[in-house]
Amino acid sequence: METPQIDNNATSNNRVIDLSHHLSDEARIRVANPLKDIMRVISECPVTDLITMANGDPHHSLYPFQQIMYEVPSIQDPSDPVTSWNNSGRTQIFHSYRDQECALPIRNAFQYSRAAGLVPCKDALTNFTNLIFAPPNHHVMLTFGNSDGLTKVFRIFGQKGDHFLTDEFSYPGITNCPLPYGVKWVGIKMDSGGIIPEELEKVLIRWDEAKLGRRPRLLYLVPVGQNPTGSTLSVDRRKKIYAIAQIWDLIIVEDDPYYFLRYNVPQTNCASADPDEFIENFRSTLIPTFLSMDVDGRVLRLDTFSKVLAPGMRLGWITSNKLFHLKLGEYTDSSTQPPHAFGQMFVTEMLSEHGWKIDGFCRWLRSLCLDYQNRLDFLLDVFQREVEPTGYAKRMFVWIEVFFEKHPRFVRERCSGGSPVVARTNTECLLKELIERLMSIHGVVFMPASTFAIPENALWVESDGHVPLSDRTRFLRATFAGTEDIIEKGMIRLGKGLREFFQE
Amino acid sequence: METPQIDNNATSNNRVIDLSHHLSDEARIRVANPLKDIMRVISECPVTDLITMANGDPHHSLYPFQQIMYEVPSIQDPSDPVTSWNNSGRTQIFHSYRDQECALPIRNAFQYSRAAGLVPCKDALTNFTNLIFAPPNHHVMLTFGNSDGLTKVFRIFGQKGDHFLTDEFSYPGITNCPLPYGVKWVGIKMDSGGIIPEELEKVLIRWDEAKLGRRPRLLYLVPVGQNPTGSTLSVDRRKKIYAIAQIWDLIIVEDDPYYFLRYNVPQTNCASADPDEFIENFRSTLIPTFLSMDVDGRVLRLDTFSKVLAPGMRLGWITSNKLFHLKLGEYTDSSTQPPHAFGQMFVTEMLSEHGWKIDGFCRWLRSLCLDYQNRLDFLLDVFQREVEPTGYAKRMFVWIEVFFEKHPRFVRERCSGGSPVVARTNTECLLKELIERLMSIHGVVFMPASTFAIPENALWVESDGHVPLSDRTRFLRATFAGTEDIIEKGMIRLGKGLREFFQE
Repeated sequence: METPQIDNNATSNNRVIDLSHHLSDEARIRVANPLKDIMRVISECPVTDLITMANGDPHHSLYPFQQIMYEVPSIQDPSDPVTSWNNSGRTQIFHSYRDQECALPIRNAFQYSRAAGLVPCKDALTNFTNLIFAPPNHHVMLTFGNSDGLTKVFRIFGQKGDHFLTDEFSYPGITNCPLPYGVKWVGIKMDSGGIIPEELEKVLIRWDEAKLGRRPRLLYLVPVGQNPTGSTLSVDRRKKIYAIAQIWDLIIVEDDPYYFLRYNVPQTNCASADPDEFIENFRSTLIPTFLSMDVDGRVLRLDTFSKVLAPGMRLGWITSNKLFHLKLGEYTDSSTQPPHAFGQMFVTEMLSEHGWKIDGFCRWLRSLCLDYQNRLDFLLDVFQREVEPTGYAKRMFVWIEVFFEKHPRFVRERCSGGSPVVARTNTECLLKELIERLMSIHGVVFMPASTFAIPENALWVESDGHVPLSDRTRFLRATFAGTEDIIEKGMIRLGKGLREFFQE
Repeated sequence: METPQIDNNATSNNRVIDLSHHLSDEARIRVANPLKDIMRVISECPVTDLITMANGDPHHSLYPFQQIMYEVPSIQDPSDPVTSWNNSGRTQIFHSYRDQECALPIRNAFQYSRAAGLVPCKDALTNFTNLIFAPPNHHVMLTFGNSDGLTKVFRIFGQKGDHFLTDEFSYPGITNCPLPYGVKWVGIKMDSGGIIPEELEKVLIRWDEAKLGRRPRLLYLVPVGQNPTGSTLSVDRRKKIYAIAQIWDLIIVEDDPYYFLRYNVPQTNCASADPDEFIENFRSTLIPTFLSMDVDGRVLRLDTFSKVLAPGMRLGWITSNKLFHLKLGEYTDSSTQPPHAFGQMFVTEMLSEHGWKIDGFCRWLRSLCLDYQNRLDFLLDVFQREVEPTGYAKRMFVWIEVFFEKHPRFVRERCSGGSPVVARTNTECLLKELIERLMSIHGVVFMPASTFAIPENALWVESDGHVPLSDRTRFLRATFAGTEDIIEKGMIRLGKGLREFFQE
């Protein structure tokens, strides 16, 4: 199959591309909730003194909330609020009032709302999105966090018989999601820089629609701090991948929970007390997103507060083109409904004049990133001291490669008879054994790479000398989200455990 | 087809019935999130000093919440807290602390949790469920409210080609939900007492599997204050429907958001200051639920805080047998994730020793019900004064029947040629016209019954003299959730509008 050509006349910033052929049958068939339609008709009715007996929502005078107060870290010492809070304990309070003035009053926040979210919250997040990511022409829809958001995205694109593309190691809590309704995954080879653009292209070129069904049209990526490998896509790879998406008409799902927690980046000039200057400097340390380069509208970006405030927030947002925005809204109206009032009130107050404002939130993000950087650096130090000297493992971020070929019971056998010729090893068994011994004998738990491996489809792995994914599944995932004490003990135990395992 | 017989030997309270054949293919195929499996293995590991480097969740010291305070109505005057609050404005405060003692501390609440919800919140709602509904043997799973809960329930049972059963007038925000993946609805005839058991049985007996696919196996009901008709199923009808469900092997989905807002029931003996006595008296005013009679495990009950606290709570729970509970959990883990910390913390504090406790919450519920009763009574008075004298309408709860046959342009024509012989009228057009005129000329909005009508399937409407649903679609839905001023103006305008419409 020849590589399709992109229409270069259509690359201006203002073009509108029809991407409706990507929608699943389900998304096409779904109709808007007629009651929400009626609400729209009402809102457009020119009668000034309109009485509505149509809407059965509880009256706000019956919501049992007079006021909600959130005591949060003070941003008064703006250079490093996380550390400053941990040291001084100094806090400030955001207020949500039922009747007094605030950014999103209780009386409005607790009503049923439109799918995209309550207007003040959606506007606040749209402002933030425009300021930080500067997307060409996109719309913001609130979600209950990225897991909820991805569920919705997968449902509006995928259906039985389809394949989605992703990294060959990926988070199963997400990749499991579309499997039960008949969507399969194709894992693309990765290296320390994340997914390899040329490997992505290879899969698309070699795809045999007669054998495998229609060519994949959706690419799911975690471009910063990929889970589990921790890799981050460079700007160069991002550009290559976007170009491939244009040529092969792919939708890119940019799931970016760790975007603001990127490590080993210059933090210069971030100390400015001037809000605008601070935001501008902060922005300059961030890597360009797929969203920011999305002239076609083929990117859906998912942001969440789970990693930068707390997982229990269950609040995030999807930024997409208008058609996909509408389809996500129809699905939201017929499933979860828009997110809870609590999170929307909190975020709206936080970003408002009464709260941290956008620059305060950015200061929190930067400070959080520094805190994690310190934890990561600590882990790397202890790893170097306790684990590397064993000679049995090396690390890529927190993705620890174990040299199973050094193990006395390591076996490689050439499978004969079959074509292609493939060398199979017992890596899988040894990894399982190591994980179990580390836990039961040495008292330390790691995630095995096998948990994240996307099963290979035999049909499209057809080159001689191909190393099966199961034999490349030789990694442990560590975390540095814990305290120094936990990190230190964990690494000491890993060092000991590896020595004991390899020198049995 | 003969009516199947129920096995009477299997009706003891402790029997376990295998209902797994009801699960959709999707629910069967779905696998648990392997990371949550590993969390379970860890929790069962006997090593006392286990260090986990597996879990990458943010550490609780980085959640930016020191304390959250909810200022709510005081229950100090326990006889009628809603009115007392509106008069005195007296409030009390529930606290969620990060580190100090409380029912569900911030440090735990904001972490990722198991699908069923955070343990203290799940336990609190399980206690409440057991105390109020006394189900035989069921488990509680938290949801983001009933819309989210029903989405999950429909997905674990329904698949392409299936039919679900429900009231012939039903809320489209819910009934739209499974349509896009190929599940159709069958509306069962209703009267002022709600769904008619004999009509349900008739549909099941007459069902022709050769023409229509497999016989429906799921019945979706709103047994109290059905939306839109406002009808409530009597105990007698509930028993008959449950018996039909046993005979025909139906799953009953009991969606009960208005359960505690049932009107015109004796409120005697509810003034007791003693908590246990109050709860017992309160319970005695409640109607038995399908859940309470569910010896087979074929009922899934959905409760929500949307109508009794506020819609923006986005918190509810499903009570079901263990198998369905597990399947709902697997779906939750691979879609929305469990609900937000805010709502779970609030509800846990509210029901705890530090909050209103269960009896305080019951006092709130009863008081809220009285408040709505007053609004309803007011609406009925004004209806009687302003609308009934026109002679063009009567009401059943807030479901207002309009006598379109009195309209000068009303037409009934016998469709000839077809079989069965059906009389068609122009009710549909007149209803649409009336709604539009009420809004644009009289400035009052009602929901037309057409919004709620479940389309009839021609194949199973085969009796001569059958009145098509479109000709029975002669109702307006009103609400009494608003203030007296709104209700009064609305009814005056309806009276005027009807006169003008009929006397054109």
